[in-house]
Amino acid sequence: MSNESTFSRRTLLKGVALAGSMVTLPSIASAAKETLNESGEATTLAEVAYSPNAKVTIERRGTIALIGINRPYIHNRIDPETFTALGRAYYDYDHDPSLRAAVLFGHGDNFSRGIDVDGFRPLVRAGQPLISGDKVIDPLGKTDTPHLTKPLIVVVHGDTWNMAHEIHLVADIRIAAADTRFGQDENTHGRFPGGGSTVRFVHEAGWGNAMRYMLTGDHWSAEEAYRMRVVQEVAPNSKEALARGIAIAEKISACGPLGIKTSLVSAHLALDPSQSEALSKLDAQFGTLFHTRDFQEGRDAEAQGRPPVYIGS
Amino acid sequence: MSNESTFSRRTLLKGVALAGSMVTLPSIASAAKETLNESGEATTLAEVAYSPNAKVTIERRGTIALIGINRPYIHNRIDPETFTALGRAYYDYDHDPSLRAAVLFGHGDNFSRGIDVDGFRPLVRAGQPLISGDKVIDPLGKTDTPHLTKPLIVVVHGDTWNMAHEIHLVADIRIAAADTRFGQDENTHGRFPGGGSTVRFVHEAGWGNAMRYMLTGDHWSAEEAYRMRVVQEVAPNSKEALARGIAIAEKISACGPLGIKTSLVSAHLALDPSQSEALSKLDAQFGTLFHTRDFQEGRDAEAQGRPPVYIGS
Amino acid sequence: MSNESTFSRRTLLKGVALAGSMVTLPSIASAAKETLNESGEATTLAEVAYSPNAKVTIERRGTIALIGINRPYIHNRIDPETFTALGRAYYDYDHDPSLRAAVLFGHGDNFSRGIDVDGFRPLVRAGQPLISGDKVIDPLGKTDTPHLTKPLIVVVHGDTWNMAHEIHLVADIRIAAADTRFGQDENTHGRFPGGGSTVRFVHEAGWGNAMRYMLTGDHWSAEEAYRMRVVQEVAPNSKEALARGIAIAEKISACGPLGIKTSLVSAHLALDPSQSEALSKLDAQFGTLFHTRDFQEGRDAEAQGRPPVYIGS
Repeated sequence: MSNESTFSRRTLLKGVALAGSMVTLPSIASAAKETLNESGEATTLAEVAYSPNAKVTIERRGTIALIGINRPYIHNRIDPETFTALGRAYYDYDHDPSLRAAVLFGHGDNFSRGIDVDGFRPLVRAGQPLISGDKVIDPLGKTDTPHLTKPLIVVVHGDTWNMAHEIHLVADIRIAAADTRFGQDENTHGRFPGGGSTVRFVHEAGWGNAMRYMLTGDHWSAEEAYRMRVVQEVAPNSKEALARGIAIAEKISACGPLGIKTSLVSAHLALDPSQSEALSKLDAQFGTLFHTRDFQEGRDAEAQGRPPVYIGS
Repeated sequence: MSNESTFSRRTLLKGVALAGSMVTLPSIASAAKETLNESGEATTLAEVAYSPNAKVTIERRGTIALIGINRPYIHNRIDPETFTALGRAYYDYDHDPSLRAAVLFGHGDNFSRGIDVDGFRPLVRAGQPLISGDKVIDPLGKTDTPHLTKPLIVVVHGDTWNMAHEIHLVADIRIAAADTRFGQDENTHGRFPGGGSTVRFVHEAGWGNAMRYMLTGDHWSAEEAYRMRVVQEVAPNSKEALARGIAIAEKISACGPLGIKTSLVSAHLALDPSQSEALSKLDAQFGTLFHTRDFQEGRDAEAQGRPPVYIGS
Repeated sequence: MSNESTFSRRTLLKGVALAGSMVTLPSIASAAKETLNESGEATTLAEVAYSPNAKVTIERRGTIALIGINRPYIHNRIDPETFTALGRAYYDYDHDPSLRAAVLFGHGDNFSRGIDVDGFRPLVRAGQPLISGDKVIDPLGKTDTPHLTKPLIVVVHGDTWNMAHEIHLVADIRIAAADTRFGQDENTHGRFPGGGSTVRFVHEAGWGNAMRYMLTGDHWSAEEAYRMRVVQEVAPNSKEALARGIAIAEKISACGPLGIKTSLVSAHLALDPSQSEALSKLDAQFGTLFHTRDFQEGRDAEAQGRPPVYIGS
């Protein structure tokens, strides 16, 4: 990077510092610092070619990154390895100065059916966070970890359930194929939506609409998500949905990247403080439910193909 | 309750306690404690059969409670006795371990035309809260009092005005019959919406939409409420609306009750802190208006069937 | 004003003071004080007749004020003089006891294309706020300055871009003519939406919908604004839109003015605390971008009619 750009980045920090209140300075300064990589932390997002073994694929198209979930043989369910690969891709994208927008999608017939419960069992049993490490960004956007400072567009299709719906809610702009089937049905399984829907689904769709689906476990369509304003556009099929997501990414990519970042910083400053506490409690709440009799009953009933019988303990 | 369930309830409290920040522990712990009745505070929601004298009816259907407002001869207007009966029903429902969902509705041609102003006059004149006592939950969800920790579904039809619209906004899921006529028109009467609409109507419908109706006093339809996303479903008539509300309650009732509670705790944790101060001021603001000349002018004009003339004092 | 009204105003203050928590007392007390002009600060909103030289026209119709932006020869772009005239009109309206509602609109073919960047250049370069002085209310509703305590209705048509869209978002009720073309495309120009859209557009339309337009710079229609619930009504043309805005103002004007003010105070109390910090940072963030190379590139590209090339510094 040129001296000119270094100067401007310092100007940005300085200008923000002059603005005032200490309360928000750390987050803004840290956002700027992380993004602008002043201390040489710049990364390069490495491509990961499509192969049956690549749980997450990464393709670079100029200033845009395409990130694909790729476990179609189990409906793109997300195990710890997939989750961490996503978190690492987000981090590298966010710190790669040559990239300006990212598009997340799913390979195969579905975006994703959500968490691979058995895969995460050891972590949850041990009370560990679902993701950890230095160079990752939590795909569920819990606020104790760094979060994306660059735009994320998500393109969904087919089954988009539970943790997958919650990963989709973290995205800034959301495109759905007409065949998308959304679900946030943990409560029918003796669990609860512990990946952010109790916060972000309520924010985007309203209390009543979010509760109508979270508390019953009923699934809903792409049109209903559009009506509830959770998705911004419905495309006829997954191929066209991805094309729309990429077209939007290209438009963002043509904008001034500092303005884009500042837009996100400002909007997060208005929204995040009221959400951070609820988000920070989710893992503990999920962990508590994990140890109940009803959690196991939900798993057993699913395995045995019978309706669960919950007793509230 | 079995030892097993007692154990799990303690596990829940313990798991939450491990989660961290002292800021939210009290509210979560208290929600859990209230709900789980560890100190033997369990209640049984008593049925109240339909009769012309029962201002609030209560019917149990397995794990579901049906709560009916029953003053059809004055359009289900809510006087202190009705309000307290509702508050007591909410409390007993919330503390009855055998119940998992409740449905609120109105008998007769209307859900309710709202507050019985004359009935509440002595309380407001004396600066008393609209509801008080140990074993009640405020149907308007002011945050200084305990609030429901279990789901409430509301089914409205016919006139659903003012305090009745605000009681409906407290519910988690809202179903309206196609004939519902909503109103929040206190401002035309020299009062103001003092039961939560300035907070919850704005949250669910947006600032502009809520102000468009609250500041003019114009009424609106079930379809418009659905468009503004305040109600989740419009049914052809009141009978089918009630059937839909019960069907949703049954689905909730089949879910794990701890997950359901945790979903509500988490969502309230994201939303309530920013709302509590505004909600806690409403009674005093209403009381202040009550003593103005314009408040009396609104009453007089209504009684005399003439347009009111307000002078701003 | 009569003794009776003075008494009632004191009653209002006293009643609010009795309500409790010190946290909100200052804002409520100050809102009441400002509005009620106890210290003799009452103003009279002076009419400004339509003429080619009047950048802002003011017409009184009984208890309603019509405020018109009038620079049609440059698409009603807002320079410092226009901005200050608006701020002064808001202040005088708010402090004129004989006025109960205001309607903001634009003369000519457009509501406004937004900020006159060159006109504001000296102020921004010097790090000055966009508006200052004792007797003004910031038309962008930054929270450090006094804000309107009476209702503002906005009627838009034609191009309604950037700062103009943000001034429109401050209004309590919004009517759009069917030909309205909305835009919040600063990011395509190397700037960012620094007038409140990162806060208020997100609140009214949801995160995804606001980002979909702010991050791409795509424009949108009146129907889309209605669908996203940013505007409350779409009228066939600008004349009918203005008539609808005036009709709504007349309804508000017939309500009890103390109830109307209390409704606004209560709703602001629920919303403003979470927004104030983000709003207070906007000027500094805009100022920082103003000094970047990309800001100038945006200006140059526009002047030269070529696509800009941004480098992120």
